[in-house]
Amino acid sequence: MTYPLLDRLRVIESSAFIAAPLAGLTLAQFGADVIRVDMIGGGIDYARLPRTPSGRSLYWTGLNKGKRSIAIDLRSAEGRELVQALATAPGPDAGVLLTNIGTPWLAHDVLAARRADVISCTIQGNADGSTAVDYTVNSASGYPAVTGGGSPQQPVNHVLPAWDLACAYQAAFAIVAAVNRRQRTGAGAQLQLALSDMAFTTLANLGVLAEAELLEQDRPSIGNHIYGAFGRDFGCADGQRVMVAAISLGQWKALVQACEVGAAIDQLQQGSELDFNDEAQRYQGRDAIAALLDPWFAARSRPEAERQLQQHKVCWGRYSTVRELLAADARVSLANPVFERVDTPGVGEHLSAGSAVRLAGQAREPTAPAPRLGDHTDEVLHQVLGLDGAAIGRLHDAGVVAGPERDPTRA
Amino acid sequence: MTYPLLDRLRVIESSAFIAAPLAGLTLAQFGADVIRVDMIGGGIDYARLPRTPSGRSLYWTGLNKGKRSIAIDLRSAEGRELVQALATAPGPDAGVLLTNIGTPWLAHDVLAARRADVISCTIQGNADGSTAVDYTVNSASGYPAVTGGGSPQQPVNHVLPAWDLACAYQAAFAIVAAVNRRQRTGAGAQLQLALSDMAFTTLANLGVLAEAELLEQDRPSIGNHIYGAFGRDFGCADGQRVMVAAISLGQWKALVQACEVGAAIDQLQQGSELDFNDEAQRYQGRDAIAALLDPWFAARSRPEAERQLQQHKVCWGRYSTVRELLAADARVSLANPVFERVDTPGVGEHLSAGSAVRLAGQAREPTAPAPRLGDHTDEVLHQVLGLDGAAIGRLHDAGVVAGPERDPTRA
Repeated sequence: MTYPLLDRLRVIESSAFIAAPLAGLTLAQFGADVIRVDMIGGGIDYARLPRTPSGRSLYWTGLNKGKRSIAIDLRSAEGRELVQALATAPGPDAGVLLTNIGTPWLAHDVLAARRADVISCTIQGNADGSTAVDYTVNSASGYPAVTGGGSPQQPVNHVLPAWDLACAYQAAFAIVAAVNRRQRTGAGAQLQLALSDMAFTTLANLGVLAEAELLEQDRPSIGNHIYGAFGRDFGCADGQRVMVAAISLGQWKALVQACEVGAAIDQLQQGSELDFNDEAQRYQGRDAIAALLDPWFAARSRPEAERQLQQHKVCWGRYSTVRELLAADARVSLANPVFERVDTPGVGEHLSAGSAVRLAGQAREPTAPAPRLGDHTDEVLHQVLGLDGAAIGRLHDAGVVAGPERDPTRA
Repeated sequence: MTYPLLDRLRVIESSAFIAAPLAGLTLAQFGADVIRVDMIGGGIDYARLPRTPSGRSLYWTGLNKGKRSIAIDLRSAEGRELVQALATAPGPDAGVLLTNIGTPWLAHDVLAARRADVISCTIQGNADGSTAVDYTVNSASGYPAVTGGGSPQQPVNHVLPAWDLACAYQAAFAIVAAVNRRQRTGAGAQLQLALSDMAFTTLANLGVLAEAELLEQDRPSIGNHIYGAFGRDFGCADGQRVMVAAISLGQWKALVQACEVGAAIDQLQQGSELDFNDEAQRYQGRDAIAALLDPWFAARSRPEAERQLQQHKVCWGRYSTVRELLAADARVSLANPVFERVDTPGVGEHLSAGSAVRLAGQAREPTAPAPRLGDHTDEVLHQVLGLDGAAIGRLHDAGVVAGPERDPTRA
């Protein structure tokens, strides 16, 4: 569902994969008119798994809802000229390009020659223009060597494309900040954001880089324990698992009380000379603490354990698969106003989501489902570029643009 | 290093841990005047590991650079009144509160009664106000069950607090979008963002939720393989590892050529009736493909392998620990303009970073190091609230505010 905060902003998105499309989605969820430009027949990401039996990508339709679609032959000079014209169309709230395609004909200078105050945001792999994706950046971040009890020789990759997500939201932020400045000063902006810079600057922000430099230490590989405080997963009698966290003192006291280990913890503290009211000392004593908690969980089914954890306001979470989450967690349902049901053409009706941000007192409008490629070709050419029916017809005839009839997933 | 895009915006941050402080840092890196409010003596996150020998948290100083600090007794009525006054001080670019502390005295309505157009952004665990942290949200996301070859019974937690990061950038985006609207319409905004909503809406955006609902399947647990295309880690003769990705056709052709497996791949395709020019079929044949590539990596040291991968423009990444990254990767050094050296009081000089976003043609200003608690108490009280020396002195005497002399890490 979308909010009308940015409802005067138009963004032309020429993109693929996750980071740039998710940045565009983020803008669209706040009301921007995001027009995604794709090759006729679909870009490189149009068929990414998972797909419906009819061939529509649930990945693509998830990332591109709430946008309009124009299909253009991006290999032709005339097609490229159309994209440039769209990105630099006049108007105080137009003139914004979002892309992860570092191609000379979309270079900032080319666009700025047509519209001096254009804002372009280009997401890259590496800042020098060389290729990198989330997984080849993450490998260098140090995290795989300390995930899941991994080591430098047995690294464990993350599955969530976390750096892509970070890039997406950071890019959306940067674009709105640049729009803000343009409104005040009239200046355009050439924004560039490399996935590798996103990851490595995050290491600086989280203190991991300074730890390596100043303390000459890498984060230890501690499996499912939380670093720096107490937290770990526990197995219940029914084979189900829960995660508990005791980062704050309140969380720690709640956990000790819920699991009825107060006396044993006191004894452990005396024996070890550790003070578990201090988070760093809880971390130090994590294995011994976990050993005291293990039997409590092992003696209970997960529903029983959860009842007690809930009652004592412990910070805990259930492990679930996505299907279990969908079946049993009210936070992922229409009971939660950030979710809505969407009927996506070629996909069917399914649970979808608007922005995770809630804006009090503001009604949300339903999110438009992801378009078919070229669903909005004609209306965009008319509305944004002022082309008339004859001019649009000529572009179709010349194969420069296409409507949804050329979408390969169309039945 | 900071950019002057938001240099007229003032944000009062009353926060702890990662999401809210990183949102504040993101705003500060674009030039906002972010004033972090802490308890005298430090909040709950002030001593989080890792720490220098003198006791300063590298985690806290990483997340709170570029901000000003005011130390206030947040338990006293007068202290709370000061925070309210700071958050609702007049001026078109003031009146913004960022917090993750859901406390009645910082509720939006309380602030709006003082300044009708105030913008507040509250980051929560769950939307109902109950506690959750990154790790207890991630457990429910389905990812731990498919990470590192894990299963629902043997989940693997992520170590990177990915949902905190996503929340941080999303919050920074939402704040700037709300500021944008306020500039146009005069309306304030009550923004709320729950960590669990951030995670679960992301599942919708990535197509994972629709996959579970419509295809009735969970993402498979495939270890270090990339889902949906080809990509995996490989071990070299010297025991070092690299990650390679062949998502696009170009990346795939480059990999086959670099590793000299063209003939073997052709044979495999014929035998399996798969077409590896199609990413989904590369994914289907991933184990057999990896088996063909294994010997090539095993026969070479990592430097040799990297030379060939680089030469053929393969999409690859080295696995490194953070110390190795810092020692050997030029992307994490002063050769990269997003990095800078900072001299943090109580910590020393170290590599730090500005925004990952690069703004062409715009000089960056150095990031101020993280303050000591209360470093800016007096100047903030004077500049923002207009208090004179006598009034400020009285607040000190009454123990309502403090300067850096009360910072517990001060030598």
